[in-house]
Amino acid sequence: MNNFVFYSPTCFVFGKDTESSAGAYVKKFGGTKVLIHYGGGSVVRSGLLDRVKASLDSEGISYIELGGAKPNPRSGLVYEGIDLCRKEGVDFVLAVGGGSTIDSAKAIAAGTVYDGDFWDFYQGKRIEKALSIGTVLTIAAAGSEGSPDSVITKEEGMFKRGASGDAIRPKFSILNPALTQTLPPYQTAAGITDIMAHLYERYLTNTEEVEVTDRLIEALLLTMVHEGPRVIEDPNNYDARANIMWAGSMAHNNMCGVGRSQDWNSHTIEHELSALYDCAHGAGLAVTMPAVFTYSMSHNVMRFAQVAVRVWGCQMDYAHPEVTAKAGIEAFRNFLISIGMPKNFEELGAKEEDIPKLVEVLCRGDGRDGSISGFVTLNEDDCTKIYKMMV
Amino acid sequence: MNNFVFYSPTCFVFGKDTESSAGAYVKKFGGTKVLIHYGGGSVVRSGLLDRVKASLDSEGISYIELGGAKPNPRSGLVYEGIDLCRKEGVDFVLAVGGGSTIDSAKAIAAGTVYDGDFWDFYQGKRIEKALSIGTVLTIAAAGSEGSPDSVITKEEGMFKRGASGDAIRPKFSILNPALTQTLPPYQTAAGITDIMAHLYERYLTNTEEVEVTDRLIEALLLTMVHEGPRVIEDPNNYDARANIMWAGSMAHNNMCGVGRSQDWNSHTIEHELSALYDCAHGAGLAVTMPAVFTYSMSHNVMRFAQVAVRVWGCQMDYAHPEVTAKAGIEAFRNFLISIGMPKNFEELGAKEEDIPKLVEVLCRGDGRDGSISGFVTLNEDDCTKIYKMMV
Repeated sequence: MNNFVFYSPTCFVFGKDTESSAGAYVKKFGGTKVLIHYGGGSVVRSGLLDRVKASLDSEGISYIELGGAKPNPRSGLVYEGIDLCRKEGVDFVLAVGGGSTIDSAKAIAAGTVYDGDFWDFYQGKRIEKALSIGTVLTIAAAGSEGSPDSVITKEEGMFKRGASGDAIRPKFSILNPALTQTLPPYQTAAGITDIMAHLYERYLTNTEEVEVTDRLIEALLLTMVHEGPRVIEDPNNYDARANIMWAGSMAHNNMCGVGRSQDWNSHTIEHELSALYDCAHGAGLAVTMPAVFTYSMSHNVMRFAQVAVRVWGCQMDYAHPEVTAKAGIEAFRNFLISIGMPKNFEELGAKEEDIPKLVEVLCRGDGRDGSISGFVTLNEDDCTKIYKMMV
Repeated sequence: MNNFVFYSPTCFVFGKDTESSAGAYVKKFGGTKVLIHYGGGSVVRSGLLDRVKASLDSEGISYIELGGAKPNPRSGLVYEGIDLCRKEGVDFVLAVGGGSTIDSAKAIAAGTVYDGDFWDFYQGKRIEKALSIGTVLTIAAAGSEGSPDSVITKEEGMFKRGASGDAIRPKFSILNPALTQTLPPYQTAAGITDIMAHLYERYLTNTEEVEVTDRLIEALLLTMVHEGPRVIEDPNNYDARANIMWAGSMAHNNMCGVGRSQDWNSHTIEHELSALYDCAHGAGLAVTMPAVFTYSMSHNVMRFAQVAVRVWGCQMDYAHPEVTAKAGIEAFRNFLISIGMPKNFEELGAKEEDIPKLVEVLCRGDGRDGSISGFVTLNEDDCTKIYKMMV
């Protein structure tokens, strides 16, 4: 196991009706002038935005609003948010929505107190300072509610890139599983896929002797295997929603990823898909992961065999571990299809003829040197083959 | 799942040589005048205390010292520490040692800024304010390095009681697994037992639909089952030590205990043993848990069957789940014996003739009404039977 620092100071407020405490938590964490950042329709229509505002009102906390955050959030709205925060003297950004809204809020919070272009952070500069952030989560998926990460798409060039820093970890996150009950099944399934991807990206490691984090990751994967189909079958199953939601936060606050190298090749490869086609990130991952895993399997067959046995209930083939490893990947692929995720480019809305362009941006865009690296290093030829496996 | 708030802001600094950063972390969290609190010989002899002092010196942070913290820490030293902190204007308490030293440091930190008798907190008053606390951990066991809890024994009456409050969560905890390599095997095994107890106390719940926390608890138990024997066989196995140490912190920061009722009957019953006989807490738990579990099994046979199958690898007897449930308890008992833990009163140094006295203090001491309650409620008759099962 490698040395590490684990610091997850986010206060998670979990359960029914917890959004009514938003104002109290903003106050507790020192906010006096709030930007409420949200996406669009559903937050307004469901009355959630009004409930959050009422909660701020009841604590005497003033606020302004910025809606319009989109899936795969864009840089344009971030610049707008930064201007607004500076002009209005905002000291707290409250995101009401899913991972995209939260990531957008994080970019605004970091950019407001930074003299340069906020995009610097998405080109590798560590975020050291930001306005305080809180969240009211409406979908179990991205884990952004408890992470130090943010992903934004730059409109010029459609580069989708990530930034990081403890300063953008939310001070608090309000998680009411009931808020996720109105999500369309496809969004729910995409969220489940994203959570499982966060787990697999940590599972695929080149660090040895990591039993404790292996076991924690497997625990959360097993939870998704159990609860995923239940929530797809009955969207109003509060308990299944609750188990998925807590798994989603624990999957990405890095409690189970510390002390080990991580992969993230699937995320990197998928980001080009959702940037170009604006598909749901989880749906893109559902198509990407089985291909990446199959392509990478020979790098460490026993690791894939382990997850196959421990999570997918495959029988270990001691004479041919690769049979077990492959069976685990197939079981995962079939699980994703069973909850309604796409299985190939066509179902995702991606096009085979775009592959050269996807590989170019993936491996050469934004300063990259012709390859990406995680569990294995993948060059342009590898990435081309992987995209072709998805067709 | 129940509503909950999870707030674990402790910064965990994990790995080899990390104690050299103690001074930097005290500074980061605002300490300017430190009380270094420790136990005795080994921290001094090993040179650890000197390394910690050197680290504070290099940051220009002044400090005073208070040694003498004992296993099952006593109220007398806490009063002494409180006086010392007030007299010297201490603003940060740095515990260097195991759970007992940390618990003692927490009591001192809370008592210093409290006008009344610190024992009030151990009689049910919530701790709202305390000096900042940091730890350099020397044994994987108590989980106090990441918990809001402290247990102290009051010398008049030998009452062993707990207090709690987010204010006594350590700001940072330094976890170097190598520091635990010099522990005697018995202490290592007692630590392993304590960690597993923290997991079982959370596992035994009356809350339904808690798959995610069940799975997380099982993951940490599985880690102990795998790594425990390895570290007993080779005390210098750094990686096994590291996996156990991280499991110990995650077992007790409540990440896997949220949203569910918990048990704690085994701890409550054991506390009277370590208070009276001054045995290692973990050793007392090794004798206590199998008896408590066997006595409580009929309350929820399927819960015990689940852990038997998922953690202990027992075959499910679908026609007779109680057979599986019992096999899981036996497997746990045998595991504890295999790592060198006592199996009965005699090996623990406890005496059958003391049982009436133990039950009296347990069920009537310090304001209790004749019973204790957790997973099941146990009256004096129940507790007498349980202690007799341990003989």
